[in-house]
Amino acid sequence: MRDFSQDHRWLSINTATVRKSRGQEVPLPDILDACARHGIGAISPWRDQVAATGLKTISAQVKSHGLKLSGYCRGGMFPASDAAGLKAALDDNRRAVDEACELNAACLVLVVGGLPGALAGKAAHKDIALARQQVSDGIGELLEFARNSGMPLAIEPLHPMYAADRACINTLEQALDVCDALDPGQSGALGVAVDMYHVWWDPKLQAQIERAGRNRLLAFHVCDWLTPTTDLLNDRGMMGDGVIDIPRARAWVEAQGFAGFSEVEIFSTGHWWQRETDEILKTCIERHRSAV
Amino acid sequence: MRDFSQDHRWLSINTATVRKSRGQEVPLPDILDACARHGIGAISPWRDQVAATGLKTISAQVKSHGLKLSGYCRGGMFPASDAAGLKAALDDNRRAVDEACELNAACLVLVVGGLPGALAGKAAHKDIALARQQVSDGIGELLEFARNSGMPLAIEPLHPMYAADRACINTLEQALDVCDALDPGQSGALGVAVDMYHVWWDPKLQAQIERAGRNRLLAFHVCDWLTPTTDLLNDRGMMGDGVIDIPRARAWVEAQGFAGFSEVEIFSTGHWWQRETDEILKTCIERHRSAV
Repeated sequence: MRDFSQDHRWLSINTATVRKSRGQEVPLPDILDACARHGIGAISPWRDQVAATGLKTISAQVKSHGLKLSGYCRGGMFPASDAAGLKAALDDNRRAVDEACELNAACLVLVVGGLPGALAGKAAHKDIALARQQVSDGIGELLEFARNSGMPLAIEPLHPMYAADRACINTLEQALDVCDALDPGQSGALGVAVDMYHVWWDPKLQAQIERAGRNRLLAFHVCDWLTPTTDLLNDRGMMGDGVIDIPRARAWVEAQGFAGFSEVEIFSTGHWWQRETDEILKTCIERHRSAV
Repeated sequence: MRDFSQDHRWLSINTATVRKSRGQEVPLPDILDACARHGIGAISPWRDQVAATGLKTISAQVKSHGLKLSGYCRGGMFPASDAAGLKAALDDNRRAVDEACELNAACLVLVVGGLPGALAGKAAHKDIALARQQVSDGIGELLEFARNSGMPLAIEPLHPMYAADRACINTLEQALDVCDALDPGQSGALGVAVDMYHVWWDPKLQAQIERAGRNRLLAFHVCDWLTPTTDLLNDRGMMGDGVIDIPRARAWVEAQGFAGFSEVEIFSTGHWWQRETDEILKTCIERHRSAV
């Protein structure tokens, strides 16, 4: 297991973590400058943040700062109520692959989607098995395209509390079943993003990390689970402030040969997004060294 | 699959569902009277509600109304930081078994507990594997006592969002693994409570219900998952108001031979607990017939 205590060379900042400063949206170029200023070597930006500035501009800035991308957030949201919706989702995912290539991302992270309409509070139906089939079909189609582009796809199992509206792939086991079905040769073109917030509770976590193995462990995300958690989406904790034994899980992941970045992804309306960008990044660096 | 559309003979009311009326706590005797008034044949009361009135008084009232108990809520909370805490939990669980016997409950429901101290916001440690071992050990010890009393124990897997503070058994598969270890003969003394709110998202739900089989399916709880869900604990929905396909799952449970009550358990600070008891019960009856 790598020693993270001496420096932060393996730290990546998911740009959602510093999306806001004192409650105000921060433009992505400012975030990238701040990361560079703190000697952070990698990021994982969100598509909406990139789009707000422009892909070419961000791509150039990433290069000039020498930043790596531990991933690109995000593709997915495959299920739809009709054929037109399914096609629109696939088209959008292809664009996400192209953007990830332009930014030289390590992988495109897939938040696969749930019941169509549920995110807007109006689920079109209750057939989660159908949604799951649409997800598997959608990833299968996207995989051909992504493989030709050389962009690995990382399925991110989301916590079961997001099964209805954000992602109906909710365990590592389920994600790996999809990988087995679509890429039985474990080519590296399809794998998983292991986000501790989503999977820490899983009694089969170690076994499924071992099952994934090096070729399918494409990303490792960290934050912490707070007790109490006051919001289902935006009350994630800084590493060390909650109940997740992150080092234990990192050891499992690294035992399989994973040697990529540890990506900090924190959504925190009430706490961290009320702080200054520099304070958030400084804390991420400290906790990366002491609690990851 | 039984036809629920014509009457509500298989409806049970978990008394937490009507714990409050217009935001005010309702004494358990008033709840029992209201259930009897609505022709409801079964309840599942909570220990704190019973204790507030007195076990003997409640027991007499249950008998005089001819009410059955689909379960008794609840035992569990096994993990502790030290030997004294483990012993205190076990002693309390034995008292819960005795109370369940006095009330002639179908089973004692076990909410097994999580990391010691986490419910109060101060987890004593982060070793969820240790908590799970303590749970398994605790159930094993309690099982001897409960078996002698003829009181079945129903492990209730709780949604993974409660893994830290309420129950570190989070899937039906995990609960059944414990059953297999402690009661390999499937004697009926140990089984599971299948609460749709906690397990609806599980891609292995049908398979694990089939694995459980008749001898281990001790209780079936219903409510609904709302989108959005605004609170991790107290924003459960009335059957039909959310995204859970309850009839599909009931069919799976009944295909195994389960022929017990369908127990409505809704915690709802913002909505249902603001209504009148009669309105809540009337709605439960309607939805039992149309959405379960």
